[in-house]
Amino acid sequence: MTVTLADVEDAAVRLDGVAHRTPVITARSLDAAAGATVFCKAENLQRAGAFKFRGAYNAIAQLHADERDRGIVTFSSGNHAQAVALAGRLLGVSATIFMPDDAPRIKRQATEAYGATVVPFDRYRDDRAALAAAFVTERGATLIPPFDDPRIIAGQGTAALELFADVDDLDVLVVPIGGGGLISGCATVAAARRPAVRVVGAEPAVRGLAARSLRERRRVEGPVPRTVADGLQTTALGEHTFAIIAETVDAVAQVSEEAMVAAMRLLFERAKVVVEPSGACALAAVLDGRIDVAGKRVGVVLSGGNVDANRFAALMTGSETTEGQ
Amino acid sequence: MTVTLADVEDAAVRLDGVAHRTPVITARSLDAAAGATVFCKAENLQRAGAFKFRGAYNAIAQLHADERDRGIVTFSSGNHAQAVALAGRLLGVSATIFMPDDAPRIKRQATEAYGATVVPFDRYRDDRAALAAAFVTERGATLIPPFDDPRIIAGQGTAALELFADVDDLDVLVVPIGGGGLISGCATVAAARRPAVRVVGAEPAVRGLAARSLRERRRVEGPVPRTVADGLQTTALGEHTFAIIAETVDAVAQVSEEAMVAAMRLLFERAKVVVEPSGACALAAVLDGRIDVAGKRVGVVLSGGNVDANRFAALMTGSETTEGQ
Repeated sequence: MTVTLADVEDAAVRLDGVAHRTPVITARSLDAAAGATVFCKAENLQRAGAFKFRGAYNAIAQLHADERDRGIVTFSSGNHAQAVALAGRLLGVSATIFMPDDAPRIKRQATEAYGATVVPFDRYRDDRAALAAAFVTERGATLIPPFDDPRIIAGQGTAALELFADVDDLDVLVVPIGGGGLISGCATVAAARRPAVRVVGAEPAVRGLAARSLRERRRVEGPVPRTVADGLQTTALGEHTFAIIAETVDAVAQVSEEAMVAAMRLLFERAKVVVEPSGACALAAVLDGRIDVAGKRVGVVLSGGNVDANRFAALMTGSETTEGQ
Repeated sequence: MTVTLADVEDAAVRLDGVAHRTPVITARSLDAAAGATVFCKAENLQRAGAFKFRGAYNAIAQLHADERDRGIVTFSSGNHAQAVALAGRLLGVSATIFMPDDAPRIKRQATEAYGATVVPFDRYRDDRAALAAAFVTERGATLIPPFDDPRIIAGQGTAALELFADVDDLDVLVVPIGGGGLISGCATVAAARRPAVRVVGAEPAVRGLAARSLRERRRVEGPVPRTVADGLQTTALGEHTFAIIAETVDAVAQVSEEAMVAAMRLLFERAKVVVEPSGACALAAVLDGRIDVAGKRVGVVLSGGNVDANRFAALMTGSETTEGQ
C-alpha cells in the first residue's frame, strides 16, 4: 500500500491546531429516519467548508523550502481549490488555481478571498491539465492534485481517525466517493484500527463507476456525470485510490439524485446544518435504504457544505434538476 | 425584581443534562463583515430548535405532582409550542397546544412528533386566550405562558449564563426581543455578573414597540407586525419582562426585513448553520450597523432555527416578502 496508518497519524500531527477537529452530529430524528444510530462527521464545518483542507494542507506542508518559493498550482472548480488556496496562505505559499469560468460564485469568491490567483478557463474549449502542466513547466510550481496522491489521501484519512476516537463500536462507515481520496484515507484507517467495520462508499447512481471499478477490478472511466453532486463528478478513480479501495472497501452504494436532495433537506430542517449535495451523498445512501444498517451503529461523513443559498433554494424547489444542468 | 441571578442558577441546575449546552459559533467571515469579534450563542441547535426549551422545561419541572397529573396547555404557532411539547414529554406531563391552523408545517409536525395534542384554531375568528382559559377551567390544566412568567424568564437566562462562562470580556450582548422573555433573562444575568456589558435588544423595525416601550417607559401595544420574523410578532412586552427590560436593557436596535434575510444567508453560506428569521435578528442588527460594535467583542444570541427548507428557499429568492404575507 502506498498509504499506511502511520502516514495518516503523521498527517494528524501536521493538522493539529490547524484543521478543525469537526464535531460528530447526532439527532434522534436522523436515527428514526435511518432505523439505526447515526454519527455524522461534520466536515461541512471544516475550514474552507470541506474535508479537502486536510489533504491539501498535509501535502503543501511537506514541500521543501525551494518548492514553496516557486509556488503551487491546481485545477478545480470546487472545494479542492478553496482548500489549496487557504492552505497555501497559511503556509506562505503562493497558489494559482485554474478554475472553469462557470464555477459557482461562492467557490470562486472564497478562493480569491483566501488570496489565491484564480485563472479562469473555458471548460469546453481548454484542456485544464495542459494549462496546469504548462504552468508547472514555466514557473517550476508544484502541482497539488485533488485526490490521487499519497499525501492527499493520508490527510483525508485524519477525518476517520477523529471519528473512531470519538465514537466507539461503529459497525459501518459510509463515505462519499468522487476520485476516492477521502474514502481511501478513511478505509486505510479502518483496516488498521477497526478491521471489523464495514466500509461502504456512496456515489451518484448516474455515475456508478466506482461500483463498476470495484466489481470489475479495474479503473473504469466514464463521461462527466450529470448529477447535482458537483463534488462527485470525477470521471475515474485515481491509480493510488483505486488500489487502496480495491483492498479495503466492501461495497459502493448507488444514490439517486432525489435521495441526496432529501438528505440535504433533512439535515437542514432537523439538524440545522448545511451540506452540499455531494456532502449529503453518504447519508442519503443510508436513509434511502441502499445499505443494510438496521439497528447498527453507522458513521457517515458529511464531506462538505459549500452550496450557496440560491442554489440550495433551487434544489429545494425543484427548479434545479439534473436535467437542467 | 421578580427574577434574580439565583433563579437563573437554579434553572441551570434543572436543565443540566437535559437542555443542550449549545456551542458558541465563531467565523472569520462574520468578524470581517461585522468589523468586530462576534460570538454566536447557537440556540438554533438547542433541543426543539430554539431557546424556548430552556424556559418551558424550567417552568414545567417546578409543577407539583397534582398539577402534572392534570396536564399543561399553551397557545403558540411556533417555537414555544414545540418546547412545551418536548418538555412535557420528558417530564411525563400531557400537553395540549392550541395552534393556528395556518401554522408552518415543520412546527406543527414537530409538536405532534413530541406527543402533544394539537388543537387547531382559526387565527382570525377564534380568541386563543379564551380557548386556553376555557381548557384550564374545564380540565384543571396549568397554562405555560410563552414569556411573561418568572420561571420562563429564569430558564431563558441560562443561555447567557453559558455564554458568559464560555467567552471572556464581552463588551456588548445583543438579543432578539419578541415578548422579552429571552432578553430579560439574559439581561438579569448580565446585570449581576457582568455589569459592564452593554445589553442591546433587536426587533423588526416594522414592529418597533420594544424601543418605544423603553423610550416612553410604558408597555406600548401594537398590531400584529408584518415581518418575516414569525418568532417576533408579539404585540406587546409582558408585565414582568417590561419591568426587567426597563431596568437592565440599554437600547433596542431596529432591524430591517432585508437585514434579517441577509444575516440568514451569511450564516448559511459561511457558518453552514440554519437560523430562522427571528433567530438572525440580533446578528442582523450587528451586521447592518445598527449597533456601535467597531473593534468590540460582541455576543449575539441566534435564538432559533425552525424554518423549513421551502420557506428558506422563498426568503432567499425573494418570493416571500413581508408584503406577500
